[in-house]
Amino acid sequence: MILNKNLKSLNENETLNTKKIISILGSTGSIGTQSLDVIRLNPELFEVEGITTNKNTKLLLEQIKEFKPRKVTIFDEDSYLDFLKIKNTSLDKDLVKLDVYTGLDGLVEIAKSKSIDILVTAVVGMIGLVPTLEAIKNSTTIALANKETLVTAGSLVMKEAKKYNASIVPVDSEHSAIFQCLNGEDNSKIDKILLTASGGPFRGKSKEDLINVKKEAALKHPNWTMGQKITIDSSTLMNKGLEVIEAKWLFGVDPDDIVVHVHPQSIVHSMVQFSDSTVIAQMGCPDMRVPIQYALTYPERIDADFERLNLFEIANLSFEKANMEVFPCLKLAFDALKHGGTDCTVLNAANEVLVGKFLNDEIGFYDIAKYIDIAIKSHDYIEEPNLEDILKLDEWTRDFINKTVK
Amino acid sequence: MILNKNLKSLNENETLNTKKIISILGSTGSIGTQSLDVIRLNPELFEVEGITTNKNTKLLLEQIKEFKPRKVTIFDEDSYLDFLKIKNTSLDKDLVKLDVYTGLDGLVEIAKSKSIDILVTAVVGMIGLVPTLEAIKNSTTIALANKETLVTAGSLVMKEAKKYNASIVPVDSEHSAIFQCLNGEDNSKIDKILLTASGGPFRGKSKEDLINVKKEAALKHPNWTMGQKITIDSSTLMNKGLEVIEAKWLFGVDPDDIVVHVHPQSIVHSMVQFSDSTVIAQMGCPDMRVPIQYALTYPERIDADFERLNLFEIANLSFEKANMEVFPCLKLAFDALKHGGTDCTVLNAANEVLVGKFLNDEIGFYDIAKYIDIAIKSHDYIEEPNLEDILKLDEWTRDFINKTVK
Repeated sequence: MILNKNLKSLNENETLNTKKIISILGSTGSIGTQSLDVIRLNPELFEVEGITTNKNTKLLLEQIKEFKPRKVTIFDEDSYLDFLKIKNTSLDKDLVKLDVYTGLDGLVEIAKSKSIDILVTAVVGMIGLVPTLEAIKNSTTIALANKETLVTAGSLVMKEAKKYNASIVPVDSEHSAIFQCLNGEDNSKIDKILLTASGGPFRGKSKEDLINVKKEAALKHPNWTMGQKITIDSSTLMNKGLEVIEAKWLFGVDPDDIVVHVHPQSIVHSMVQFSDSTVIAQMGCPDMRVPIQYALTYPERIDADFERLNLFEIANLSFEKANMEVFPCLKLAFDALKHGGTDCTVLNAANEVLVGKFLNDEIGFYDIAKYIDIAIKSHDYIEEPNLEDILKLDEWTRDFINKTVK
Repeated sequence: MILNKNLKSLNENETLNTKKIISILGSTGSIGTQSLDVIRLNPELFEVEGITTNKNTKLLLEQIKEFKPRKVTIFDEDSYLDFLKIKNTSLDKDLVKLDVYTGLDGLVEIAKSKSIDILVTAVVGMIGLVPTLEAIKNSTTIALANKETLVTAGSLVMKEAKKYNASIVPVDSEHSAIFQCLNGEDNSKIDKILLTASGGPFRGKSKEDLINVKKEAALKHPNWTMGQKITIDSSTLMNKGLEVIEAKWLFGVDPDDIVVHVHPQSIVHSMVQFSDSTVIAQMGCPDMRVPIQYALTYPERIDADFERLNLFEIANLSFEKANMEVFPCLKLAFDALKHGGTDCTVLNAANEVLVGKFLNDEIGFYDIAKYIDIAIKSHDYIEEPNLEDILKLDEWTRDFINKTVK
């Protein structure tokens, strides 16, 4: 699709502008900065139109200076007002002419621009949903890094993407792996998706070991450097649960055909088993820039100096079953996905609030699963929710958790 | 290409004959019988036109009864004459009307038929070359299981395949794996081919361990059931050397970009590393019917009940470097490939004769490499050999080895 766009611009005018125009929601976070790393390495391929931050205006200013976007959003209103003061007293030409927005409307403003080829949705949490849906309406390719978009509204988002013929290219290493394993293949021949999981910092632990565990231990992820929310999700395996839900929507498979493989080396990023028994796997050193770059250059690959896999050094790749008793969040995610409707919306919202509480030392490790389960059982289930239903239910769940957890 | 043929027949007549018509050179061997297993499981997809054997007329008669080919070749002349006696006194309708041939001309007769969609070249040794070239001239798809075709005449065969637009689809598990890893990918983005090897029965042994080793030990292959010649080649790693040569021709890569990975579990059948650092691997239980079926159904996959990979049971996948001092045949193959010209033709012919001598207890394990090296150094090198040069040199090498080895 993007290639066609480029061909069109090649034919229609002589400027030979074949650069892809990118905007990034959440450019100061982990995925956002790594997306800019990829863009920095390939200035001949990409141009940045819009970037956003929650509060990190210091880093945003550096990114503005380097990538010269035309518009930015500072989500947090106080930070936005502070930023406007800087802008209004600045003599910097690029800064002066910059369009600056705030809040959810600001994210939508960046996302809905018709001139962008790819929107990288690298914000964490529920706020990614509405801007993503706006971009889809323009048939913009979504480089999807925001898990909640599909977890909370998978049915709706995939329907819209189909309607507007918008590609959704996963950025997450596991889904990018599956997406790559399906290159040149027929999705109807998928037998199973073998979703790998590092197992997180608590792999091999028992329930007794984990009952009194604190955030400090949970934040020590063995293989990947990620944001705090995702790192806690990785310690509860909710991260994997959310990925199972995403995989169902992205690749159209049954929950029972998604099998989690705990693979502590994080070398095999995921696999697909086809109906002739063949398994195709995507592998590499753990480096998020690889799937980010693939999402930005798809359907092509481009050369990169990223570290090469040395299987002689690694010597062994191992695989274990996930223990759903020790990690009940994973089972909750499977159950919610099988039950369908609004269960995953509640699961996601409850988890987001509860992880916040765990990071504030307000609740214990197993309270996360406990209260997610209570929230799912307590909510008013809707089989086919629309956007309003989802947003309302998300809010209801957050209130419910805040009221229920003392 | 085949799909187009089928579409054409769908449009042009109403018989709905969408079956692929297959002939198999070497139908009574290991790959041949497994090809017929795949055809037996999918009678709605395939029809057999021609099959061939060297001497195994007993099995050939069974295959004739079951698959009702229109023509057969019995390579060995005495067996052919015996078979004619049976045919001439038979009352079986299918047998009576059968066309029967012998010798190399007989193989060519089967191969050059314009009505076949796919020729499976499952004969072992140099005799596969000429019939394969004849089939290529008709743009027939070659399901290539005969290693010698590309090893001995890779440059010539690939040139002809390009000229006549004939697809060469590998049947060998490693090359099929690489072929599958390249599905939907751009071959120019190959960084390295990671060719896996079981390591054979002598993995981990030292040179001292192997000096006096006999054929009985060499024939005990840990993972695959194969013919005797290939099993000995697997014990010397010449099998892998021949595969390195084939991979160069099939996928157009530099010898230095083919890295042998000894992987004793034989689960990862091979891998491709791309220029963005991504590695794609093809995996599965060791079962030759999987790559055979893929070659027959390509570009599609079809459902099959072949055993599913259970990575939880296997638990560990390991990788080691190949030891070229203990297995000098592998180094000889790399050197011959790098040097080019007729070196690989001599390597292959010398190896074929020497393996025969080892199987007859005439020479020791390390004599295979020793005399291959001597033969390569002694031959009249030709940079760009034609078919006649190759056939002559093949004969010269066999004579040379028979004269040189007492």
